[in-house]
Amino acid sequence: MTKNLPMSHALDPARIAERYRREVREEIRLLDKPPKVILFLTTDNPDSTTYAQYTQHACEDVGIDYELRRVARLDLEEAILAANQDASIHGIFNYWPVFNNEQDGYLRNQVDFKKDIEGLCLYWTRKLYSNDRMAGDNKKAILPCTPLAVLKLLTEAGVYRTDIERPIEGKNICIFNRSEIVGRPLAMMLSNDGATVVSIDINGPLQFVDAKPAEIDISRAEALSQADIVITGVPSADFVKISNAEIKPDTICLNFSSRANFEANVATSERLFIPRVGPVTVAMCMRNSLRLYKNFHQS
Amino acid sequence: MTKNLPMSHALDPARIAERYRREVREEIRLLDKPPKVILFLTTDNPDSTTYAQYTQHACEDVGIDYELRRVARLDLEEAILAANQDASIHGIFNYWPVFNNEQDGYLRNQVDFKKDIEGLCLYWTRKLYSNDRMAGDNKKAILPCTPLAVLKLLTEAGVYRTDIERPIEGKNICIFNRSEIVGRPLAMMLSNDGATVVSIDINGPLQFVDAKPAEIDISRAEALSQADIVITGVPSADFVKISNAEIKPDTICLNFSSRANFEANVATSERLFIPRVGPVTVAMCMRNSLRLYKNFHQS
Repeated sequence: MTKNLPMSHALDPARIAERYRREVREEIRLLDKPPKVILFLTTDNPDSTTYAQYTQHACEDVGIDYELRRVARLDLEEAILAANQDASIHGIFNYWPVFNNEQDGYLRNQVDFKKDIEGLCLYWTRKLYSNDRMAGDNKKAILPCTPLAVLKLLTEAGVYRTDIERPIEGKNICIFNRSEIVGRPLAMMLSNDGATVVSIDINGPLQFVDAKPAEIDISRAEALSQADIVITGVPSADFVKISNAEIKPDTICLNFSSRANFEANVATSERLFIPRVGPVTVAMCMRNSLRLYKNFHQS
Repeated sequence: MTKNLPMSHALDPARIAERYRREVREEIRLLDKPPKVILFLTTDNPDSTTYAQYTQHACEDVGIDYELRRVARLDLEEAILAANQDASIHGIFNYWPVFNNEQDGYLRNQVDFKKDIEGLCLYWTRKLYSNDRMAGDNKKAILPCTPLAVLKLLTEAGVYRTDIERPIEGKNICIFNRSEIVGRPLAMMLSNDGATVVSIDINGPLQFVDAKPAEIDISRAEALSQADIVITGVPSADFVKISNAEIKPDTICLNFSSRANFEANVATSERLFIPRVGPVTVAMCMRNSLRLYKNFHQS
């Protein structure tokens, strides 16, 4: 379907994000009042400013009431706890990293799960890892935004098929990243939906089948040569970029890291290469905001 | 008090641990039945085996019923959840690292807070950071074992004085480590008790006064030259070891990392140098086990 198009056209995350935003916009139009969300920003570096502007635009576009709150990083915990208590606020998200260490995990868990747009607090993580997709009657669980965005992009690529019971049955997927934020939940979700996932991080590989991890002895070369899909999210400069010679001609490649994890030569005309997921991640934030509102805040 | 003794005599963690073990032993003797604890071990490296033998001996010594359970790391989560449900088990602890990434934080939080010997799940961490020292009527909160062990060693050194209201009032303390497991809780505890703490990690310094962190612009040299006490826990080989020339002649030095963080020349005859805390940490595990039992499991 995408063979004759330049790749940047074939899978433009911004265009796909717009489709999900339209869905959210139509649902929000039917509500009595719009959900209200808060983005906490603790830095003023250019990336965070860009992110704040982008999310503001995305929220306004779908009809979500958006507030940006700039707070000192040392005041963030108190600000989160106050927002948890404020009934006029229905969703909370943050720009990461804040402290760039384990304290960020602590902070993520201060957000009330009923307002946790990112779906990264232990309440939602535990649900995901125990394959519990509900949070009460008619309340679908919140999934973390970036793994969800990857699924949506693979759906768009035609390789994740929502019309069959196991949407990604039989595919070999190699994921470089096993963070609690993206890599591990993504491996669980994809293997739960039928894929065989080799998850590689600095500590070595694990294999995920049917949402169950197992020890495996496999080299990078072997894992890559078998992969139908390669997904990367390695922020380290030490990572040896994946080159065209390591993968099959038709392997789908997706990078969710802000750093390039593939050599430029992987972007051949035969191959679908998705260099970023950001806009779809933000669309999933909008979607989660709506879901939280409908689950927990609608009167 | 310790000037005329060789330093290794002056503050032998094993001897101090024995005193705390004796206290625990005497209390356990008065109970109807002993607390039962489980140590989960997921590796068979020599360090973990040593730790398992040491904790077994320490438990038997104080009268705690001890069980070592070896499980594959991928089965640890399920094993913890099963132990949470098992009413015959009153305390759970683990040998870390297991996955050596963020997943270890996830696992720490699967332990029921009523059985969390290490005091590292969010329930206890949140109590500590909000300076809430109780967990219900007559139920003292659980504090994390290593920071608590450091306090006990400083008590023994005579610099942390439990006979006054603010036990470590007016002391300048420099801590190299701001992990959620030791460095941050320790900075909070010591500053809550009157010290001015400069906490340094790879991301820079923070100052803690009265259990409140603040931004500070201070160099390593400046922080070290002012310190009455220097506490280190840096596992990285890149860390430039602290040398005698950087600190005052009577600065107390304590290292809780398994790696040497001080040059050998800091161990002068004038100075108290505490090169390890391990035995006292284990004694605090025993103490926490008893406290958990009395708080939550005694009939």
